[in-house]
Amino acid sequence: MKDQIDTFERIESEVRSYSRSFPVVFDRAQGATLFSSDGQAHTDFLSGCSSLNYGHNDPDLKQALIDYVSRDGVAHGLDMFTDAKESFLADFERIILKPRKMTHRVQFTGPTGANAVEAALKLARKVTGRHNVIAFTNGFHGVTMGALAVTGNGKHRAGAATPLSGVTRAAFDGYFGPDIDTADMLDQQLADPSSGVDAPAAIIVETVQGEGGLNAASPEWLRKVQDIAHRHGALFIIDDIQAGCGRTGGFFSFDGMALSPDIVTMAKSLSGMGLPLALALVRPEHDIWSPAEHNGTFRGNNHAFVTARAALLKFWADDGFARRNADNAAYLHDRLRRMARGMPLRGRGMMAGIDMGSGDTAAAVCRACFDDGLIIETSGNHDQVVKVLAPLTIPRAQFAAGLDVLERAIAAEMDGLRTAAE
Amino acid sequence: MKDQIDTFERIESEVRSYSRSFPVVFDRAQGATLFSSDGQAHTDFLSGCSSLNYGHNDPDLKQALIDYVSRDGVAHGLDMFTDAKESFLADFERIILKPRKMTHRVQFTGPTGANAVEAALKLARKVTGRHNVIAFTNGFHGVTMGALAVTGNGKHRAGAATPLSGVTRAAFDGYFGPDIDTADMLDQQLADPSSGVDAPAAIIVETVQGEGGLNAASPEWLRKVQDIAHRHGALFIIDDIQAGCGRTGGFFSFDGMALSPDIVTMAKSLSGMGLPLALALVRPEHDIWSPAEHNGTFRGNNHAFVTARAALLKFWADDGFARRNADNAAYLHDRLRRMARGMPLRGRGMMAGIDMGSGDTAAAVCRACFDDGLIIETSGNHDQVVKVLAPLTIPRAQFAAGLDVLERAIAAEMDGLRTAAE
Amino acid sequence: MKDQIDTFERIESEVRSYSRSFPVVFDRAQGATLFSSDGQAHTDFLSGCSSLNYGHNDPDLKQALIDYVSRDGVAHGLDMFTDAKESFLADFERIILKPRKMTHRVQFTGPTGANAVEAALKLARKVTGRHNVIAFTNGFHGVTMGALAVTGNGKHRAGAATPLSGVTRAAFDGYFGPDIDTADMLDQQLADPSSGVDAPAAIIVETVQGEGGLNAASPEWLRKVQDIAHRHGALFIIDDIQAGCGRTGGFFSFDGMALSPDIVTMAKSLSGMGLPLALALVRPEHDIWSPAEHNGTFRGNNHAFVTARAALLKFWADDGFARRNADNAAYLHDRLRRMARGMPLRGRGMMAGIDMGSGDTAAAVCRACFDDGLIIETSGNHDQVVKVLAPLTIPRAQFAAGLDVLERAIAAEMDGLRTAAE
Amino acid sequence: MKDQIDTFERIESEVRSYSRSFPVVFDRAQGATLFSSDGQAHTDFLSGCSSLNYGHNDPDLKQALIDYVSRDGVAHGLDMFTDAKESFLADFERIILKPRKMTHRVQFTGPTGANAVEAALKLARKVTGRHNVIAFTNGFHGVTMGALAVTGNGKHRAGAATPLSGVTRAAFDGYFGPDIDTADMLDQQLADPSSGVDAPAAIIVETVQGEGGLNAASPEWLRKVQDIAHRHGALFIIDDIQAGCGRTGGFFSFDGMALSPDIVTMAKSLSGMGLPLALALVRPEHDIWSPAEHNGTFRGNNHAFVTARAALLKFWADDGFARRNADNAAYLHDRLRRMARGMPLRGRGMMAGIDMGSGDTAAAVCRACFDDGLIIETSGNHDQVVKVLAPLTIPRAQFAAGLDVLERAIAAEMDGLRTAAE
Repeated sequence: MKDQIDTFERIESEVRSYSRSFPVVFDRAQGATLFSSDGQAHTDFLSGCSSLNYGHNDPDLKQALIDYVSRDGVAHGLDMFTDAKESFLADFERIILKPRKMTHRVQFTGPTGANAVEAALKLARKVTGRHNVIAFTNGFHGVTMGALAVTGNGKHRAGAATPLSGVTRAAFDGYFGPDIDTADMLDQQLADPSSGVDAPAAIIVETVQGEGGLNAASPEWLRKVQDIAHRHGALFIIDDIQAGCGRTGGFFSFDGMALSPDIVTMAKSLSGMGLPLALALVRPEHDIWSPAEHNGTFRGNNHAFVTARAALLKFWADDGFARRNADNAAYLHDRLRRMARGMPLRGRGMMAGIDMGSGDTAAAVCRACFDDGLIIETSGNHDQVVKVLAPLTIPRAQFAAGLDVLERAIAAEMDGLRTAAE
Repeated sequence: MKDQIDTFERIESEVRSYSRSFPVVFDRAQGATLFSSDGQAHTDFLSGCSSLNYGHNDPDLKQALIDYVSRDGVAHGLDMFTDAKESFLADFERIILKPRKMTHRVQFTGPTGANAVEAALKLARKVTGRHNVIAFTNGFHGVTMGALAVTGNGKHRAGAATPLSGVTRAAFDGYFGPDIDTADMLDQQLADPSSGVDAPAAIIVETVQGEGGLNAASPEWLRKVQDIAHRHGALFIIDDIQAGCGRTGGFFSFDGMALSPDIVTMAKSLSGMGLPLALALVRPEHDIWSPAEHNGTFRGNNHAFVTARAALLKFWADDGFARRNADNAAYLHDRLRRMARGMPLRGRGMMAGIDMGSGDTAAAVCRACFDDGLIIETSGNHDQVVKVLAPLTIPRAQFAAGLDVLERAIAAEMDGLRTAAE
Repeated sequence: MKDQIDTFERIESEVRSYSRSFPVVFDRAQGATLFSSDGQAHTDFLSGCSSLNYGHNDPDLKQALIDYVSRDGVAHGLDMFTDAKESFLADFERIILKPRKMTHRVQFTGPTGANAVEAALKLARKVTGRHNVIAFTNGFHGVTMGALAVTGNGKHRAGAATPLSGVTRAAFDGYFGPDIDTADMLDQQLADPSSGVDAPAAIIVETVQGEGGLNAASPEWLRKVQDIAHRHGALFIIDDIQAGCGRTGGFFSFDGMALSPDIVTMAKSLSGMGLPLALALVRPEHDIWSPAEHNGTFRGNNHAFVTARAALLKFWADDGFARRNADNAAYLHDRLRRMARGMPLRGRGMMAGIDMGSGDTAAAVCRACFDDGLIIETSGNHDQVVKVLAPLTIPRAQFAAGLDVLERAIAAEMDGLRTAAE
Repeated sequence: MKDQIDTFERIESEVRSYSRSFPVVFDRAQGATLFSSDGQAHTDFLSGCSSLNYGHNDPDLKQALIDYVSRDGVAHGLDMFTDAKESFLADFERIILKPRKMTHRVQFTGPTGANAVEAALKLARKVTGRHNVIAFTNGFHGVTMGALAVTGNGKHRAGAATPLSGVTRAAFDGYFGPDIDTADMLDQQLADPSSGVDAPAAIIVETVQGEGGLNAASPEWLRKVQDIAHRHGALFIIDDIQAGCGRTGGFFSFDGMALSPDIVTMAKSLSGMGLPLALALVRPEHDIWSPAEHNGTFRGNNHAFVTARAALLKFWADDGFARRNADNAAYLHDRLRRMARGMPLRGRGMMAGIDMGSGDTAAAVCRACFDDGLIIETSGNHDQVVKVLAPLTIPRAQFAAGLDVLERAIAAEMDGLRTAAE
């Protein structure tokens, strides 16, 4: 493994990141377990940042892919019609859209979340003829220039090395404490012709800010923001890239919230197996693209269509999976509450964590977990939140064992801090 | 197939494009042949816009992928170390970089060409502390906001629906005719402190403009532009996304040109099988990213690492493939010259075509080809160039037959036009 | 006069504005009185939007100008040394800067307030190497592209007809009601590395928003904002163009507030006689301009230096004028309070008015005043504030008579509204 | 005078510029002569950068101003109707517009050239709904952010300390040598939908680039550029701030060229006496401003209206002045040609100079002139052009004597260089 790590250190760019926290070489993966090349098993509480909600190499998805490749299914199709795409679309309509009475069109953007966000913002500007977009504190939407402009993270923004423009930053739900309704503030600014906030093309929001610290917006606040968007002539965009696909329970993170976004962006767990796939759901009246106006070589990743469809059929054909997610989430929140010792809990559903108060403390906890066979990461504006993103399919025993590791690490760190303070 | 097409028309966004030219549903593909779901075979002279240089489902690449998936190889790894990535990197270094004495670091950006371009531009701005980037007339680099700013195509630019900034447009080689050296013009402007052209962070160029009309830059002009970049403190970026991976002969489109770009962007055929994969090669002194400063969920597409490595081993371990490409290219150019009846030829190597003088004529030729079982598309600022992008691995007989189809279509269209004119 | 108005309607651009409210031709002016060409006298409660704080054609300033012109004093001097400029500078230092222990350098920008703001913003960006500027809701700083970006007014912003960038909008003192400390909100956003608010080059603020509705910031809030600027590495800029030169009492609107701005912009009443003159006061450590880096043909308006100096000598050599301003302001606020019938008062010192609740009502009051010989205008995001900007030198009797006119107009409008409502 | 200079060095910003070349304090000025406070006379070949085309303190203009001030004429009128403005407008229409069959409306912008340029660009964007503006190499249009974006000078552009956007730079007439028609190049780029040059709102051009090196465009080229603008849906803007008001002969620098610009910006010598005044002439169909959409406190500088009108009556009521300008220009060019010893002449009319090949040489010549009683400055991208901008009213004897000084300085410098080289 040492030789392999030498290869990375010699050839790969300094931009690499997670490999610094988990300095082993992974080889195989099954379900909630990653195996390093020395054969050691690691329980995965990171799940590709919510790209592996159904676990690694789910046997049914894997088999569907092998069958497809074996029979010479089209792998790369630009945006040509393919059998694999048609099957996905038809089942996506039947299983996801129709039951929710959503009439959205599906746009296959380039196969990254950032690309879906770029498409959404371009389309909102095209539809409205306006330039400004409202985005929120601590939002994360990707690092290509259009997506980066709506992202809040200062370290990522600095990577642009040139000013980012076209965005007005508003305060997320609860940003100024529980007593200040930040939606009302936004409404006041948009209603004031002299506020200096230009009429927006769109308001883009995550229901739970996955990178920004697991801040969860309330349904009331989200409905208010949607209403503000519509009253002020803007499109309401939900970026469901990290919170969607079951992570907070339902297929969409806003299921059951009586929301009706104009555009929804999806990626990460969409393909079900971690393959690159992204899409934007667009209300049909806004689908005014001219052909190829937004394009991309890999917008037809047919392997991903195959596994994405298999995931729909396996996990979303009835409500069993959503119920299981709710049950897992209840267990998770209960465990976290107990181990948190009064530190604040963050998140919703199966994206939840503990605000450790400092990035150093949170990092120390994650390091200790890794030494104990658990892969887990931080989140938040100061990396202060230890974030549990276990596969939704994780067996309860493995989930419990992983949480035991986390509990021990937190206890040790807290005890160490208390001892140091004395 | 009618039902399938209904699905697309009902659910998929209006942005879809190639499916309008080729209104059939593709199912399987092997080598240079695409099979529609009605069983019909189509010879592919589009090759996923140069993403399928090694043909569809190359048996060795396909087997490598099946093996990997079957043994539960890690599919999605964020940017963690994986065995598949290490193997790719080590062989990329051994087979591609070392023989060329290139010391570049490999950055796996998000798995799209646009994302690699975004990373390259951000890094160039970060390295130089400058904002301006020089890009060329008729260049195409992607449609996310940073890449779109360097793209010349007006239809794509309009999709942004907001001004694109940070870019100065220069004239590509030959843009103002054979007597005007556009590199000298750029040099004069950069040397003039009052030209209004701000000192650039980078000059980004394609050696052959794949979307812009198969305009091929001469090695002399490219060397001059590289020299201009360096004399004026800018990074020299070659976007080799469409022209690389053997399309013009060697692995890099600039092989043998005595060029030494600071950054090279690659995507399209990199994975060998059409899977999403992109990278930026960065000279080590410019690799000043902080960890995760540019990130992306799918930057570790391990399936693509596996097939990309298999492609390196199969096609680039010796110079046989490059020689075959040269031979194929000679055949292609000879055929094109004869069928062109004096119309100008465009391109270099296995990306070549005929300038039909008008987009309507070129479109008519492509339509006729499709009716005759050949998939082929146009390129150029007026879509006036019929572009041959056959798989590099295409058997000579199939290549010849496809070119026969094209020759007949051109002849018919030319005869039709002559008759109409009379 | 009809013929004259025909000339304007035939030749002058539709952009003209005040002439629509006051459709007479003015000829002469003395003190607080404007005479139209039909000989009618109008009391001036507009004062050139606070450009005529010392009244029209003050006899001493006028004589100084006539003397200077008569002796062939240099009129236009670019930024060459002139006697008139030296005398102004020496007395400005002696009378204004030294007593306040201000060590600021004087930059003569182009002779408009907007130009002084442009210079201030450019310098702040140059000093800090940052791009972002914090400006406030309802702020007005001019309509050239740099100044317009910090201006809040939507109608003026729309005039750019292209996006304005480089500015983050913060909420002015009291914007979200008396219970929310908007300075704390700004501080929180700047301290949060993931807030999406980029580190600012400057915070620019008016102590009283002259165009934005006579919103007056408290000294505590201003000190907090200055402290926020400095803690976050930004320059603190006070735009004192409308509120300065005695309008709120002292020479600077922030006199006595224990503030120490990095840059102060001045214009309007600076020349004392309404002649174009503007300057930026810059703390010496920030005066890092290279020669001519910011220039402008009319930055040496020597006629204005002459009258500006005469105004310093006449009005600011001792504290008598400031005391008289305070006395006038007390009288004004008392009168306004009584005539307001409970409607909110706005402003501070001799820039004060009544919030009539709607722009229509305020406009009706101003129209009635004009019919009764009083020139007065509105302010505010809905033009809802009737604004008294009388010359500071207005005789008490004329001031009282003008306020009588206003009182009658308000009473009549309120009575009319009440009657209409019944 | 030493004490006075101390004042400047102590208090005035480092941005001051001309005072570094001419380190004396000027006091009085008459005609073509500036008197320093020690009584010494200096002949003025700078003329306030063409702001004093009629010389300093022309007796008739001066008397008109004294009369106006003496009778309490309105000095500052915002944009209200005044007698002084009406008289100016009526005579401007009668003397300037009507004889040229120009139907343009007059917009009084803020009283600086930069402000007129800002207004012109905003209006062009508003009229066309486009963002991009074409400006030329070595153009100078001012340093406020909108005007600076179209300015070519790198030192001034750097003063923004943030990227300038919304502008495409084209090559001025002759920029690439006599054999390349830069207008054709621009036309090709605008006609090419893939050139990356967005459809422009306007093309802005100086007929002679006063700051950029006295580059004079040919009438043919200007007509071609105007035609290009109109064919591509853009407004054609002539910035006549430095070249207008007789500097190249007629009132407009484009008189007699069969041009019909959509907008003309004027400032500098417009007031006739060096007082701040600027305007934009706008074709009536483009005058779509809403009231006050572009405003500015000093847009009604009535003193300047008075002197501007006096200048119209004195110099432009018949064609005598233009003929005298032509005669002076012929004399000037003849003298320059003889003293140039083969170095290239630059400019047109009474804005002409010699390209000394280097900024150092040109600076040395100017320094020697100053020591010999002549004020003269450089121009050009390397400050390499010694520029003669004498008052148009200069008596022939003084003109000849000044040119003698220049001739001696050039000869001495050339001889010195030759000696040094030997």
